[in-house]
Amino acid sequence: MRPRVGHIQFINCFPLYYGLIQNRVLLDMELRKGTPKELNQMLADNLLDLAPIPSIEYARHFRELVLLPDISVSCDGEVMSIVLVSKVPIERLDGRRVALTNTSATSQVLLRILLARRYKAAPEYFVSPPRLGSMLMEADAALLIGDEALRAHYELRGQANVYDLGREWKDWTGQAMVFAVWAVRREYWQRFPQQVLAVKRALTESMHLSLQNLPDVAAKAAEWEVFSPEYLQQYFTSLRFDFDRRQQEGLLTYYREAVNIGALDEVPALEFVGDTP
Amino acid sequence: MRPRVGHIQFINCFPLYYGLIQNRVLLDMELRKGTPKELNQMLADNLLDLAPIPSIEYARHFRELVLLPDISVSCDGEVMSIVLVSKVPIERLDGRRVALTNTSATSQVLLRILLARRYKAAPEYFVSPPRLGSMLMEADAALLIGDEALRAHYELRGQANVYDLGREWKDWTGQAMVFAVWAVRREYWQRFPQQVLAVKRALTESMHLSLQNLPDVAAKAAEWEVFSPEYLQQYFTSLRFDFDRRQQEGLLTYYREAVNIGALDEVPALEFVGDTP
Repeated sequence: MRPRVGHIQFINCFPLYYGLIQNRVLLDMELRKGTPKELNQMLADNLLDLAPIPSIEYARHFRELVLLPDISVSCDGEVMSIVLVSKVPIERLDGRRVALTNTSATSQVLLRILLARRYKAAPEYFVSPPRLGSMLMEADAALLIGDEALRAHYELRGQANVYDLGREWKDWTGQAMVFAVWAVRREYWQRFPQQVLAVKRALTESMHLSLQNLPDVAAKAAEWEVFSPEYLQQYFTSLRFDFDRRQQEGLLTYYREAVNIGALDEVPALEFVGDTP
Repeated sequence: MRPRVGHIQFINCFPLYYGLIQNRVLLDMELRKGTPKELNQMLADNLLDLAPIPSIEYARHFRELVLLPDISVSCDGEVMSIVLVSKVPIERLDGRRVALTNTSATSQVLLRILLARRYKAAPEYFVSPPRLGSMLMEADAALLIGDEALRAHYELRGQANVYDLGREWKDWTGQAMVFAVWAVRREYWQRFPQQVLAVKRALTESMHLSLQNLPDVAAKAAEWEVFSPEYLQQYFTSLRFDFDRRQQEGLLTYYREAVNIGALDEVPALEFVGDTP
């Protein structure tokens, strides 16, 4: 059976998809699409063998998982697609209502960390469908992620009280922020190391090809999106898709802060796939 | 938004998938996989714009659909992947119990036609999960389709009372049999003709490429299947993927017979996508 590999449907993973297609490697895996949260559930339910999942979920299930090195969805400063839109300056959100979308576990915790630890604010949170208008009818601020956030970022650029959480994290910690990691079910890695290494190679080579052709990637993505190629290229450039020491340090800081606010029980080890199980 | 295109997960559509990947055209459509029956439902629910569906379902919904010319899943004789496995000769199934799988509407009706009209047999039908062993515990004969049928055909080759329904149909009518057709929602065709024509071109060119490289297609498919490359090449050769006059005539005969046994209310017109809506 082909390795069952998850794929994030957001624009942030379009460069990877572009590379997978240009390199014609999709015959060797069974690609299944979903949100990071859905993919995490499918991995837990043994419906996938390997998938990009929210980085907070890796920490919650790290004993059953192993990480792929060299690939992540991260930023080191502006991220553009994780945005808090607020009616008041962020410093004044204490005691107010904040609407969260339920599609990204990692960003929810990131916002809680920033508000609690950086801004000493304890708002009331509630989960809402990801439509900015209706969120702001009931809340003073709304967290948007993914394509919706990108749209808000695009339309509200330069307005007051629009906060890029990658930028916020960087200003506060000086570090990178990792939103998604590629995790393998540990049992699958132990039974089928060659398949895992083949998928790892296909993913990193595809990403590599894509990053060398960003103008074409952005042009291709823009054909079917509301964004201009220039804007998408800026977005793909602000994202980081590797997973080097700098991102690993940022991720561990994030985990420590998540433990601090009670969103996580412990800081996990980052255990990577090597040459053999 | 990219055209949402259905794809059949059975081996019979692997040649098309191979071509789509070799031609690197998947960036221009949103491919969603499923069984023919699931795809038909997704098309009806407006979750897909264009999909391969069981040919019987086209006849049931033809007023909302238009067909792609030049592509189908058909046979003109042996099909290998639609098999009746019986404990007794097919002529003696009258009054006996026959287990059907619920994954292919077209094959169920084909079996009913053959038994009722060719063999004058009226068995008792019931639907069952597609596992031959448990089907034959409760029934005298079992209809298998798709990958399960192919496996049974592979393992039971040459045994008595194993019937290939493509061969049965050919022996009785002298005609081709069409199992799946590519249907477009009529409203989508009227609103987005250029998208439909682009997908049509991508599908037919991909199929064309694949048919020119069948040994490689079969070798690639065999990497992840239990079948040998030679067996798969024989299978892909016994299938017909075009939709010419001969297949259209066979399909209309099938529809007339389906009306005869009460499985269909009327014989639909075969209406095809042209150059403009």
